[in-house]
Amino acid sequence: MQSDWLSQPAVPLNETARLTAEKRQAQLTKPPGSLGALEGVAIRLAAMQGVTCPMLEQVQISIFAADHGVVAEGISAFPQAVTQEMVRNFARGGAAICVLAKQLHTDFEVVNLGTVEADENLPGVRNQRIAPGTANFTRQPAMTAEQLMQALDAGQQAVARAVDAGCQLFIGGEMGIGNTTSASALACALTGMPPARLAGPGTGLDQNGVDHKIRVIQQSLDLHQGRLDDPLEILRRLGGFEIAALTGSQIACAQKGVPVLVDGFIASVAALAAAGINSAVKEWLLFAHRSAEPGHIRVLEALEAEPLLDIGMRLGEGSGAATALPLLRLACALHGEMATFAEAGVSERDG
Amino acid sequence: MQSDWLSQPAVPLNETARLTAEKRQAQLTKPPGSLGALEGVAIRLAAMQGVTCPMLEQVQISIFAADHGVVAEGISAFPQAVTQEMVRNFARGGAAICVLAKQLHTDFEVVNLGTVEADENLPGVRNQRIAPGTANFTRQPAMTAEQLMQALDAGQQAVARAVDAGCQLFIGGEMGIGNTTSASALACALTGMPPARLAGPGTGLDQNGVDHKIRVIQQSLDLHQGRLDDPLEILRRLGGFEIAALTGSQIACAQKGVPVLVDGFIASVAALAAAGINSAVKEWLLFAHRSAEPGHIRVLEALEAEPLLDIGMRLGEGSGAATALPLLRLACALHGEMATFAEAGVSERDG
Repeated sequence: MQSDWLSQPAVPLNETARLTAEKRQAQLTKPPGSLGALEGVAIRLAAMQGVTCPMLEQVQISIFAADHGVVAEGISAFPQAVTQEMVRNFARGGAAICVLAKQLHTDFEVVNLGTVEADENLPGVRNQRIAPGTANFTRQPAMTAEQLMQALDAGQQAVARAVDAGCQLFIGGEMGIGNTTSASALACALTGMPPARLAGPGTGLDQNGVDHKIRVIQQSLDLHQGRLDDPLEILRRLGGFEIAALTGSQIACAQKGVPVLVDGFIASVAALAAAGINSAVKEWLLFAHRSAEPGHIRVLEALEAEPLLDIGMRLGEGSGAATALPLLRLACALHGEMATFAEAGVSERDG
Repeated sequence: MQSDWLSQPAVPLNETARLTAEKRQAQLTKPPGSLGALEGVAIRLAAMQGVTCPMLEQVQISIFAADHGVVAEGISAFPQAVTQEMVRNFARGGAAICVLAKQLHTDFEVVNLGTVEADENLPGVRNQRIAPGTANFTRQPAMTAEQLMQALDAGQQAVARAVDAGCQLFIGGEMGIGNTTSASALACALTGMPPARLAGPGTGLDQNGVDHKIRVIQQSLDLHQGRLDDPLEILRRLGGFEIAALTGSQIACAQKGVPVLVDGFIASVAALAAAGINSAVKEWLLFAHRSAEPGHIRVLEALEAEPLLDIGMRLGEGSGAATALPLLRLACALHGEMATFAEAGVSERDG
């Protein structure tokens, strides 16, 4: 199982731009290193955008929504109907990510890949319905091979639209009741860690609920045992449409040379799959925040990722990435607009 | 030694506004707690501003600059001339904080309280010259009682100007070569911790430099021993004009009901002194970031402060606070603009 485009190479980072950006950072009127992580972010973005001074004016936020058959196992604190209710909330601008997108002047779209019941005509929502949710992966694979490809392609298509609009940074978000169970199962299969290290409360399970979720994930891993050694097959058996779309978007960004700002637990698990499918993708990923979902720290470790924020967010929808976006923009502004020691006539450090 | 205004009471927080803000947070379309620290920030700002939905459009950044006599002991990686050179860089808009203030659309001013050599007419720089730097506190008190009051008053005056301009949040920054040595000495005297736990590289000392700095601070603590039991007297003997101005600004903000976003190591030590002088000040302080300067974590612990960012910044100038400002603004926007469950027709959690 392989779609043609997935294995196409990523754009190589521009090492000349990285070096000129590093040189510029060292000349700015501040003690070297004193802007902390903002310095490295600006330099990485320079290497990605192939310029000494990167810009992040044009940012795309695409939210992928879908339902999960595994919800039948009672693994979520919220009812399944909330996925579609939140799609309507996105369309009306009432969700957290809508408020953030408006404040941050980003482009924003929602792609419905398969809620159980879908409205046809919601403003700002694209209907790319694959099925009314995935199958229950405690009993069978979550998707057919064709469904997986449709979901991956939906991510690629969102990136293609973003590139056409001049996108300088891509944020993918997700909505899908039950998707921390799917993401935890995926992370188990992709890393080999047991469910107890990766499953957490999601939208708000208590300890009994988390224990049940761990048993459900273990049962699924047992069912699919022996067929979990390829990242695409793992995604097909245990994933969700919206998670696979995030994976597809991350691979497509690397292939189009667009930096990705990765959100929280679900988006990071998607990145784990993306890096498994095409290892060069990792170079194009910036990590926004460490989620309060306890498994996220382990997924970040597996990705060798150092996120910018650690403020206890765990909402999804791309909200953590959007919240970190101003830090990236300030990093670019500082890098591009501060005076150098020579320009400002400021003395450098003593001998 | 006490100026009339310093002991005036702080404005009490508005507990009614806090409760209505908490109630509103609980109704927004997200799992409770899922916006992490952004929820508590919005609620605290509501209690400070006395409204259900706080706003941070009008923000003041005031930078206080001054020189330090203790620089004669060779405790800084950069020469003393850099303080004034950076004041010129502020005036020309080339410093980090200028770029941040412009990006964030804040008001911005620089107050020169006493660089060794001062230019008289720099745009955007107020000259309130107390002396050409403090005295070397390894040999005598850094300031006279009158000089200390002038510095504290300068902070109060900056807040008065900000209030006149409709300020909804105050950020105080500092510039003064040598001021991590002064701040470390102050923190030792205010907390009782030894210099080795509070002194660090500042703008970039190597380990030998840090060891020397520790000895200089210990020598100063020994000289002033027995006279370090009052926070104002500690500030007079070991402080700097710009640090005392920050302390004055923090006390004045609490008295005028203006939230303060505290920057890094120096501003937090100023807050330690402010809380020592007038304990109600602490309720008006929000902490922006944990600096890479190693003593900062201990000062934050002493203040029971939990900063938002931890990204290795250590520049001063108010730059860490400015970098955190977008998070506070997004917290307010989310709090004020998200739909409630009832408005959006979204189901609440099961059970």
